[in-house]
Amino acid sequence: MLQPKWIWYPGDFEIYHSNLVHSRREDYGMEYPPVWMQYSPYPRVDCRKTVKCEEERTIIVHTNPGTMGMVTISGFPRHFTVNVPITLPAGEYELHLRLYNTTGLPSCFIDDTYYGTDESWRVSNGSFNYVQAAATPAYTTLEKTPDVFAFAYDEIRPVAVEEVAGGTLYDFGKETFGPVCIGGIDPTDNVYVCYGESREEALDWENAYVHQMVSGVETAHLVPRAFRYIHVRCGKKCDLTLQAQYEYLPICDVADFSCDDPMVEKIWDVCAYTFHLNSREFFQDGIKRDRWVWSGDSYQSFMTNNYLYMDPEITKRTILALLGKPPYDQHVNTINDYTLYLIISLWDYYFATGDDAFVRLYWPRFKALYAFVLGRLDEDGQMVQRPGDWIFIDWSEMDKSGPLCAEQILLWKAALSMASLAILCNEDAAPYREQAADLKKLIDERYWDEEKHAYIDCYTSGKRSVTRHANIFAILYNFADEARKTELMEHVLNNDAITQITTPYFKFFELCARCSMGDLASAQKLIASYWGGMIENGATSIWEQFDPQAKGAEHYAMYGTPYGCSLCHAWGGGPIYLLGRYCLGVYATEVGYKTFCVQPAAGIYGEFHGVVPLPGGSVRVDYKDGTLSVLTDCDGGTLRINNETYPLHNGQKLEINCTL
Amino acid sequence: MLQPKWIWYPGDFEIYHSNLVHSRREDYGMEYPPVWMQYSPYPRVDCRKTVKCEEERTIIVHTNPGTMGMVTISGFPRHFTVNVPITLPAGEYELHLRLYNTTGLPSCFIDDTYYGTDESWRVSNGSFNYVQAAATPAYTTLEKTPDVFAFAYDEIRPVAVEEVAGGTLYDFGKETFGPVCIGGIDPTDNVYVCYGESREEALDWENAYVHQMVSGVETAHLVPRAFRYIHVRCGKKCDLTLQAQYEYLPICDVADFSCDDPMVEKIWDVCAYTFHLNSREFFQDGIKRDRWVWSGDSYQSFMTNNYLYMDPEITKRTILALLGKPPYDQHVNTINDYTLYLIISLWDYYFATGDDAFVRLYWPRFKALYAFVLGRLDEDGQMVQRPGDWIFIDWSEMDKSGPLCAEQILLWKAALSMASLAILCNEDAAPYREQAADLKKLIDERYWDEEKHAYIDCYTSGKRSVTRHANIFAILYNFADEARKTELMEHVLNNDAITQITTPYFKFFELCARCSMGDLASAQKLIASYWGGMIENGATSIWEQFDPQAKGAEHYAMYGTPYGCSLCHAWGGGPIYLLGRYCLGVYATEVGYKTFCVQPAAGIYGEFHGVVPLPGGSVRVDYKDGTLSVLTDCDGGTLRINNETYPLHNGQKLEINCTL
Repeated sequence: MLQPKWIWYPGDFEIYHSNLVHSRREDYGMEYPPVWMQYSPYPRVDCRKTVKCEEERTIIVHTNPGTMGMVTISGFPRHFTVNVPITLPAGEYELHLRLYNTTGLPSCFIDDTYYGTDESWRVSNGSFNYVQAAATPAYTTLEKTPDVFAFAYDEIRPVAVEEVAGGTLYDFGKETFGPVCIGGIDPTDNVYVCYGESREEALDWENAYVHQMVSGVETAHLVPRAFRYIHVRCGKKCDLTLQAQYEYLPICDVADFSCDDPMVEKIWDVCAYTFHLNSREFFQDGIKRDRWVWSGDSYQSFMTNNYLYMDPEITKRTILALLGKPPYDQHVNTINDYTLYLIISLWDYYFATGDDAFVRLYWPRFKALYAFVLGRLDEDGQMVQRPGDWIFIDWSEMDKSGPLCAEQILLWKAALSMASLAILCNEDAAPYREQAADLKKLIDERYWDEEKHAYIDCYTSGKRSVTRHANIFAILYNFADEARKTELMEHVLNNDAITQITTPYFKFFELCARCSMGDLASAQKLIASYWGGMIENGATSIWEQFDPQAKGAEHYAMYGTPYGCSLCHAWGGGPIYLLGRYCLGVYATEVGYKTFCVQPAAGIYGEFHGVVPLPGGSVRVDYKDGTLSVLTDCDGGTLRINNETYPLHNGQKLEINCTL
Repeated sequence: MLQPKWIWYPGDFEIYHSNLVHSRREDYGMEYPPVWMQYSPYPRVDCRKTVKCEEERTIIVHTNPGTMGMVTISGFPRHFTVNVPITLPAGEYELHLRLYNTTGLPSCFIDDTYYGTDESWRVSNGSFNYVQAAATPAYTTLEKTPDVFAFAYDEIRPVAVEEVAGGTLYDFGKETFGPVCIGGIDPTDNVYVCYGESREEALDWENAYVHQMVSGVETAHLVPRAFRYIHVRCGKKCDLTLQAQYEYLPICDVADFSCDDPMVEKIWDVCAYTFHLNSREFFQDGIKRDRWVWSGDSYQSFMTNNYLYMDPEITKRTILALLGKPPYDQHVNTINDYTLYLIISLWDYYFATGDDAFVRLYWPRFKALYAFVLGRLDEDGQMVQRPGDWIFIDWSEMDKSGPLCAEQILLWKAALSMASLAILCNEDAAPYREQAADLKKLIDERYWDEEKHAYIDCYTSGKRSVTRHANIFAILYNFADEARKTELMEHVLNNDAITQITTPYFKFFELCARCSMGDLASAQKLIASYWGGMIENGATSIWEQFDPQAKGAEHYAMYGTPYGCSLCHAWGGGPIYLLGRYCLGVYATEVGYKTFCVQPAAGIYGEFHGVVPLPGGSVRVDYKDGTLSVLTDCDGGTLRINNETYPLHNGQKLEINCTL
């Protein structure tokens, strides 16, 4: 039985919502457009399907607001219009819907079990090139059109209300996000509404990131924003009401984690909540600011997603928002490394899900993006800074006077990803493989320092300085062989003379690299001190950055402003990935988890318990008192401990006495 | 002194208005989206300029509706917002305006004689690639924003009002276009408003192309539409008022023409009026229907434009609307020939104006479009029908079973145009020249029929049929040499056994070809019979098609519907070109009319008088009683009569006794 859905041109739902999302950043009451190119949906879309139906039926081709259209049906000499009933006698017809939306997303909906719109329709951008229509289960009714993102809403109430600083301060008890409605306003008055992730921010109109002055209305419906605290101040005496809703993406957690340190469970829960808040139309960096989609941040969010919800939809949406559409004149987010992460992400997405249809559909765009990358390499095939490029890697002192080693390792990894994707798309992988092989040789020749036992940042200046970044990538991506990876652990990662990573963003990569080398304990210790440190300092969601030395409101300062630090940042979700991947030890060994491995490690924990999602199921791992038990409802699992392997049978708990 | 103007990314004003224009077609009260791909403006635009000013000034960066923005000024640590005053002390600043419009055209305006926005600003689509900002003199005030096309308006009044068919029929005396306002409506009533280019159409609600039912308002402001007649009918008794405005592009005619046949002057005036009505945002095909921009029709309009107004702006706008932006997945208007006309048009535009900046700015798009053409040629380099292509040439019986000769001659002409354009852009013309040379050889080998003394349509079927089309192109574009052109005149154009051209569209090409071979008389006779025939049948503007055998309302039928024939069609303006080019005899002999020739011919006229526009001036030609006089206010002119040449001196009338 066909489930009718709103349909549109693949990728344009994401491009449309990306434009909405990226127009919402607020800085001190000012608009803040994104610093990169954005794209547009195709204004003209054709939809076609041939349907045979043995009975007469009356259908309506509904269009969303802003979409005009015309309906041509084989056998009918005159065309029909949209949004009015059309009666079709029994028979076989080719339906051709021609849509046009000059301001938004062209979309249509036929609510009929025979003629209904769904992914079985073919769509084009007005050209002859038809592809499968896009749709999602979120838009299956006439009322819910895809121009409005399908969030869920729960009413939330303040846990404390306080008269302070000439107004009322509402404390919702924890970081949250959603629309606020203020009633009882005297329309002749000016009402000042100041949002705060911290109490201090809400009370500091001058320096708070998000505030709004309301006047001329009795009831103000304010747009969804991040807050824990809201301070409302009237010019005149007033008696206001305030209602708030939590706006969220209704995805259920599959994962869970606890251990003998009760603080870790608390950290894990706050990480999960933080990650939920940042899982919206797309993975955002932070819900107060930037509220933008950054490829580097998203790359880490994709990893965490697979260990918390395993929701392919948000990963696909995020990839498509970042990808835009050709022609490409700019790196993703203007950052060279971020283009490479996006390419690597596509392969990772495929490896986790086995969703080859998605890869094939967008393969031409990825090839165009990669052609843009190749067109800007230097004569040696290295990624270098061209006009308009941002060679980022990390907020860190690094010798960037010439090509960077870290960037070339990412390029090598991206080339390998392109090779694997090419094979999937029945195309020649050899050029990508050759590029990767040439790059590997070049990197080892030019950046490896035998005396320092490390990859240097850059060879052009002669400084031969070493930072952690390239060496972390060399471990993480298995660029280096086992012997050299061990060498890098000793001479770089465990060498205090090498400057420490300072950003949680890159710290995550370091922890992944350490864990992959068996050093789970480092991650566990940092989770306790760094993540735990925030919670001890009152965090209800994980912050963009944390300095254990800072005191009070000093924690909220960053980028030279008192509340510049986002107090709810997606990359704070890292422990969910780290603990799921390296403590519970679950990972795919074949595409789409057709086979997977459970390789638990205790590290510093005496016991641990947790669940990791799998496609269509999960795996539960418990370790306590020398007994390890593993239970999964999926096929293909293998338990690996102490160099032994044990098959996992779907639905049968495996218990083994062991010391981890 | 700087004249501040609204600025935008080049080409996007045209793409934005093209979307508006193409969303306005109405067919029997139904929406009718264009049948081809449309494009979108870039949503993110950056604008930059460094300005030095010796005094303190306060500026505002205004944005048009829908555009958000942010202002960064060198030396100021925090950014500014748009639409609020910013005070700049004396000094030198780099201004960087970051605009974002997710639904329309990003545009901004600084109204300041120092910091003001104009074409001296640089803009990008959010990438690093900056180009000169686009602006037009039509948008130089805060109030007039570029989202609303700058038409002029005159109030117009009906010449007759008649109670008929249960309503009131307003006759405005001639074809016109504009908004209508109906007042005094009973909001509980349904008021039926029916537009007619003919009286019959206005009175025939069922079959009229454009009609609207109004209810729920006291005053109805109806969108601008084409009409001569408007019939208004109420359900209840009513006492309505009707006001109408003529909406038009304020361009002045430079040209003029008269001769000893007074009917020709009348025809010329109706042609000019028809052409004005169709000269809007872009050259449209017809003002009632389709109201679309077609490249073939536009190509002819560009020619007429140069002999009526010589307005480069509307030609550029039309080229840009047709051109869209890469990537190209479809031929212009889906028609292969129409892509080729657009390429030829760019060279023609340059040759008429010398506007090399325009060519250089859009050269990358033309190259991408041409790459699309090349990518779809067959193994012999011929233009063939690929999926989604429409090989049109003309509404005419033609052997289209394989590659068409007419299409290949157009491709040859386009390749030569690309070669000339490449040279202008300092690029290698050789590949285009070689392509043209190869094509010429192929066409002569495969399509020339020595026995028929003609180019055949197609060789694959073995039918070897001859139509006029390819042979007209062979003359018009000097594909054939002089001897063969004479052969073609005798054996094809003057051969009654070859099927006549039936469409005014291609008839225009035939007349051009005939005139170029000295046969002005044919054009003059057809102007009298065909164009004059319409006027004798009551035309107040030139129709899409005219059958002298038809009677009464039969004239209005076409495409199988009673009023399918547009009664105001741009290509009706052809006589303006033909008489200016071949009777008055004015044409450029160097780029931008740096030199030009006046080579008058009388044909069947005993006397004639006229003016032809030149860039920045005009030339007046009078011939009466054996005296020819020529006066121009431009340099570079040469009079050529009877194989003699005479220099024309700016401002000095040249009089010569001669027989033309």
